[in-house]
Amino acid sequence: MENFSYYTPTRVVFGRAAEEQTGELVKAQGCSKVLLHYGGGSAERSGLLGRIRQSLDQAGVSYVSLGGVVPNPRLSLVYEGIDLCRREGVDFLLAVGGGSVIDSAKAIGYGVADGGEVWELYEKKRRAKGCLPIGTVLTISAAGSEMSNSSVITNEDGWLKRGYNDDISRPKFAVMNPELTMTLPKYQTASGCVDIMMHTMERYFNQSGNMELTDGISEHLIRTVMKNARILMDDPDNYEARAEVMWAGSLSHNGLTGCGTDGGDWASHQLEHELGGMFDVAHGAGLAAVWGSWARYVMDARPERFAQFAVNVMGAEPGADDTETALRGIQAMESFYRAVGMPVCVKDMGIEMTEAQMRELAEKCSHFGKRTIGCVKKLDQEDMYQIYRNARD
Amino acid sequence: MENFSYYTPTRVVFGRAAEEQTGELVKAQGCSKVLLHYGGGSAERSGLLGRIRQSLDQAGVSYVSLGGVVPNPRLSLVYEGIDLCRREGVDFLLAVGGGSVIDSAKAIGYGVADGGEVWELYEKKRRAKGCLPIGTVLTISAAGSEMSNSSVITNEDGWLKRGYNDDISRPKFAVMNPELTMTLPKYQTASGCVDIMMHTMERYFNQSGNMELTDGISEHLIRTVMKNARILMDDPDNYEARAEVMWAGSLSHNGLTGCGTDGGDWASHQLEHELGGMFDVAHGAGLAAVWGSWARYVMDARPERFAQFAVNVMGAEPGADDTETALRGIQAMESFYRAVGMPVCVKDMGIEMTEAQMRELAEKCSHFGKRTIGCVKKLDQEDMYQIYRNARD
Repeated sequence: MENFSYYTPTRVVFGRAAEEQTGELVKAQGCSKVLLHYGGGSAERSGLLGRIRQSLDQAGVSYVSLGGVVPNPRLSLVYEGIDLCRREGVDFLLAVGGGSVIDSAKAIGYGVADGGEVWELYEKKRRAKGCLPIGTVLTISAAGSEMSNSSVITNEDGWLKRGYNDDISRPKFAVMNPELTMTLPKYQTASGCVDIMMHTMERYFNQSGNMELTDGISEHLIRTVMKNARILMDDPDNYEARAEVMWAGSLSHNGLTGCGTDGGDWASHQLEHELGGMFDVAHGAGLAAVWGSWARYVMDARPERFAQFAVNVMGAEPGADDTETALRGIQAMESFYRAVGMPVCVKDMGIEMTEAQMRELAEKCSHFGKRTIGCVKKLDQEDMYQIYRNARD
Repeated sequence: MENFSYYTPTRVVFGRAAEEQTGELVKAQGCSKVLLHYGGGSAERSGLLGRIRQSLDQAGVSYVSLGGVVPNPRLSLVYEGIDLCRREGVDFLLAVGGGSVIDSAKAIGYGVADGGEVWELYEKKRRAKGCLPIGTVLTISAAGSEMSNSSVITNEDGWLKRGYNDDISRPKFAVMNPELTMTLPKYQTASGCVDIMMHTMERYFNQSGNMELTDGISEHLIRTVMKNARILMDDPDNYEARAEVMWAGSLSHNGLTGCGTDGGDWASHQLEHELGGMFDVAHGAGLAAVWGSWARYVMDARPERFAQFAVNVMGAEPGADDTETALRGIQAMESFYRAVGMPVCVKDMGIEMTEAQMRELAEKCSHFGKRTIGCVKKLDQEDMYQIYRNARD
């Protein structure tokens, strides 16, 4: 077991009609001007943004608006947000949306409070000096950004998708009404579920002696998401299932499922970031497309861990040895992906990767040969290429 | 499933040598003078207090000291602490010890920042206007006060033991080194484990439709504590087992195991508070002594829930109906209590309750007939008397 720290200061307000409390929650932060940050038209069309504006008005909170966040949120809009906040004297960010909107808000928050070039943080050149306080109204269960310290931004100059983690960006509050996720298309719901599962799986597959308490919480969380993802494919308006998935999304990425570990592997996420940067695929779908290839490539480094996962999470029958059991678990996970309409290779997303593209993905993912990724097995540029190659079709 | 809020702002620093960071953690709070609050001689003799003082000195933190906290912490010492803090201009409380020390610090914190009569809070006459910020160095895994919003104080005038819950008292940080708990006597270790389990069991036995995610976390937490409590009876220096129990202690009372529920029953805790007030027994032992009696008294109100507990937590074979299964679970829990040296009735603690004492306990617990307790089944003064009566021997 490893020493660890755990810090989840976000106040969660969870349940039906939770968004009605938004104005009061913002007001309690004692800010003078708010940036209302959101994505496309769906939050507007559904009436959610109207209700949020009403709630802010009723609380007497002054705000300016910036919409237009897209999946794989862009650096250009972050710059626009930073300028707007400076011009308007914004001192609090309210993100209404999913992980992309919240991540965009975090980047804006860094940019305003830090004062320097924000992309340098995502390039890991230095740490942020500060971040504006952030509140969130969650509309997509997936990224866990509503409680996490992480954000991922895509720089259109080179289509580089990079993450930056810092506790100072953990949101002050998260308003979570599962009903707000009921209108999501099946594909996006399933993609979100994969993302949630992967946040725990990345931590679960590690190189440390594990904490029993954390293992059991993690295994139960993944099983619960799988069960409820299947329910939502047939019954998207099921409140209980939406709620299980939504709360799992927060717990999966707030640090809880990493306590006592070395932090986890995260290679699948890094492999997917390049896919997302190059092909703009849904993040969870991209993760599903590379995970099986990654798992088969690294499982020999910790077959006993993959076997535990197979039995405790996937309900696989133990095989003749850990390797056989591990493979059954990987196959069972791929069956689950298929069952909820997720890809198990890149071709399943309608993308035929060329040899040159796979080489470029590996080159970018390895920062041009300058870094390895993963901890179950350390992966260099050639390993990354092989995993993309095996994930092709 | 119920709407819920979740708020755990405490920064946890967990693992070997964690206490060395205490000075820096206090300094980061930006306070000018600290009250170092602790219990009896063990923290002094073990050298822990010396190391904490050294850490404070190295960080350049100024402090005054107040020791002498006893189990079932007393209101008189709280008053003394409030006076000392006012005299010395203390603006941060550092509690080094277990739940009693942390609870005492919380009461002092309320008293100083609130300005009014602190006992009125514990009498539920009003809410606190404020609380001094608190940090903790944990030495006993039990109460969960290091992350919780609760504190329990005993008023020597009438030996009334009362709790008060308020989010403003949640500690800013918790330093948790499992090694610090290795010197605890077996009885105290087991008593702590029962307290931890009960914080989740009180939430688990409720009247609401439950959240699957919370149920599984709760069931795994209780199983993990039971397993590791047994290990510690033979191997008190087992770091991994100490760590599992310590982290379970925090998660069990920080709110996680209540998410999506109606808050839980809590009757066993309230019944025990009166026992603790009258006989000064160890809190966990007192809980073990009344739980079986409580469970048998109320199980008919939710037999299916007790049956789920029996199967998923206690590993009981299902009986002919839920009632039979439920009883098997209760018996299995009592067998566990015995196995770790805990009582299953009040007589097991060497106390022969008289008829008059049981009547007095029920009278106090019902606030002289003015309140009911519990939610699985609402209990009035006569119910309380019957439960004490059945728990006698």
